[in-house]
Amino acid sequence: MSAWVLPDHIADVLPSEARHIEELRRELLDTARGYGYELVMPPMLEHLESLLTGTGEALGLQTFKLVDQLSGRMLGLRADTTPQVARIDAHLLNRQGVTRLCYCGPVLHTRPDRPHATREPLQFGAEIYGHAGLEADLEALLLALDCLKATKVEPLTVDMADARIVRSLLSGAALAPGQVVQVHAALATKDATELSTLTCDFPKATREALLALIGLYGDAKVLAEAAKVLPRAEPIRQALEHLQWLAGHVDGARIRFDLADLRGYAYYSGVRFGIYTPGASDALVRGGRYDEVGAVFGRNRPAVGFSLDVRELVGVAARRQLKAAIRAPWLDTGAGAGELRTAIAALRREGETVVCVLPGHESEVDEFLCDRELARDTAGRWAVRAL
Amino acid sequence: MSAWVLPDHIADVLPSEARHIEELRRELLDTARGYGYELVMPPMLEHLESLLTGTGEALGLQTFKLVDQLSGRMLGLRADTTPQVARIDAHLLNRQGVTRLCYCGPVLHTRPDRPHATREPLQFGAEIYGHAGLEADLEALLLALDCLKATKVEPLTVDMADARIVRSLLSGAALAPGQVVQVHAALATKDATELSTLTCDFPKATREALLALIGLYGDAKVLAEAAKVLPRAEPIRQALEHLQWLAGHVDGARIRFDLADLRGYAYYSGVRFGIYTPGASDALVRGGRYDEVGAVFGRNRPAVGFSLDVRELVGVAARRQLKAAIRAPWLDTGAGAGELRTAIAALRREGETVVCVLPGHESEVDEFLCDRELARDTAGRWAVRAL
Repeated sequence: MSAWVLPDHIADVLPSEARHIEELRRELLDTARGYGYELVMPPMLEHLESLLTGTGEALGLQTFKLVDQLSGRMLGLRADTTPQVARIDAHLLNRQGVTRLCYCGPVLHTRPDRPHATREPLQFGAEIYGHAGLEADLEALLLALDCLKATKVEPLTVDMADARIVRSLLSGAALAPGQVVQVHAALATKDATELSTLTCDFPKATREALLALIGLYGDAKVLAEAAKVLPRAEPIRQALEHLQWLAGHVDGARIRFDLADLRGYAYYSGVRFGIYTPGASDALVRGGRYDEVGAVFGRNRPAVGFSLDVRELVGVAARRQLKAAIRAPWLDTGAGAGELRTAIAALRREGETVVCVLPGHESEVDEFLCDRELARDTAGRWAVRAL
Repeated sequence: MSAWVLPDHIADVLPSEARHIEELRRELLDTARGYGYELVMPPMLEHLESLLTGTGEALGLQTFKLVDQLSGRMLGLRADTTPQVARIDAHLLNRQGVTRLCYCGPVLHTRPDRPHATREPLQFGAEIYGHAGLEADLEALLLALDCLKATKVEPLTVDMADARIVRSLLSGAALAPGQVVQVHAALATKDATELSTLTCDFPKATREALLALIGLYGDAKVLAEAAKVLPRAEPIRQALEHLQWLAGHVDGARIRFDLADLRGYAYYSGVRFGIYTPGASDALVRGGRYDEVGAVFGRNRPAVGFSLDVRELVGVAARRQLKAAIRAPWLDTGAGAGELRTAIAALRREGETVVCVLPGHESEVDEFLCDRELARDTAGRWAVRAL
């Protein structure tokens, strides 16, 4: 095999796409800053127990492990940034009040999430800590929508769910952890046959409610229907009320409900959302409330947040026109060399790209699309003219 | 040990520093784009032989290794981005003409380079391929200086050296690879006693020249001195001529020569430079010519480039004033709620940070420094006023 073949599901990002990703990255970070979210940069590597405790088995399987030569301890390459940001909130900042944080950096997965997924997403996300009320859920959801709008991704559909519903339903049945995973998987894929088999020994009310969940998918009518067919447990009543309130506060996106949706990480504890756009095979954004994520770090603060993969986003965001460049000749010494250098520096300060054509390369097709050139005008001064 | 203790030489970057790093990152990438350098994003993980072939033992020791579950093959976490960019030039772009590329992303080291170094530098760099002439060396050096000036790091001193000098001197002695490493180490630390011991069996002329190199450190007089005391081999004559030419073309930085300097990776093949500023314990930038770096990928193109660690840079760049923010109240419904939302959105579009104070958190000290607030004026309209 050639030395230059990359591992499966790992790819280089070449210039036109890289530049687009960089622009999206800046727009996302600037949008979050506009809402008062402060940037943090957690490390790529941490002790394994710090990365994984309390986050569920799925994240553990996704995490590359290696040995630290300095300490002999096991390290993990982060597969998700949220637990790291919870650690920063809990221990480094340790503020009493509301804390808003955002981040953008690579994460690595041992296996791709989906058949064509990358193993190296560029994860951007934002988290708000310290407010248990629904206003924090709403702010996170509105920020996520504004982030997508800032990158010109539209139209948007929000799918809403709530982790408390399934949790409340399953609390009635004494299940082994393996059974819980299987039930979650059957719900996520809306596999009624499988779910029916898995729940054959469950209490009748629990079983019927779980099977009903699969059909609880669609517009606002779903909430009314759910109130009728689901048990009258307090967590379920509260979840439905919260979903109703949030949906009533969102403009500019279609809202759907998918009460069986449980995809993503196991740390969610309340309202959850996914944001979709035509052309993307999966949710662009996943977010929600995960009040327990900081518990392992000794500080069980209320938390809501979301994340997205900038590389996935670039696939659905409108292509942009790359700004064209200016060619300039190479002049080492002699008449006009100093003036040429000054003219080039001034153009670059204005944000222009000026490519100096190195000696012997005058006939090459430009790497950058040059639509102008720097040349002497009739008065002998350096001036930009169209090519 | 607590779950939240990070591995040695690994750290979180907290808000004020993270924002500064992000600003430097943008200034560096924009400066490189102004010169026509196209952004690429090579992956964090590659097959080990792709990352390491032809790059020398030091890089191999710095590289974390792990097993790919998909293929069973060994992967490496990149410890340096230059070989990846050479691969992209050689195989993905495969252009005939001059190619200018830049990058910015984390690299990971198994061990810190220096006592207080991080094991996770944020590496920014730029490379120019396809031009063997000195103009490419000059462009890389000028771009590196402009990058540092764009981030307000000054004053700057450039230390210049040339990999051909030591290589030419050692070509006269038949040495084992281990001996070469030892001689390089003694030269790098300017350890005359050690060098004297190591070279006791070398041809007399070689030995004297190597010992003389240690003293060839200082301003332009060093080149004249070197021409006198070093052997009259063609590579040495050429190296000295090239150093003279380049030094004559650089403004705005002090130039020194350090002909024994061999620090950094083994792939350098011609002129090399390091850029220093007071307050930094080591070179901020290292760069030079490495014409052979693409050979393992089947394309031995001329190449010059440089790299730096943005985290190191932030330690010496002037601290910046963070832009202050605006506080806004939380209004759910009722009179003025719609107008408030519109006013907040307009301020955010103008680049302002507007922090909504969530209900119950009115008395908290702001996470962002808020110097203004959004409040109703006497006419009942929402307006920004000083706090």
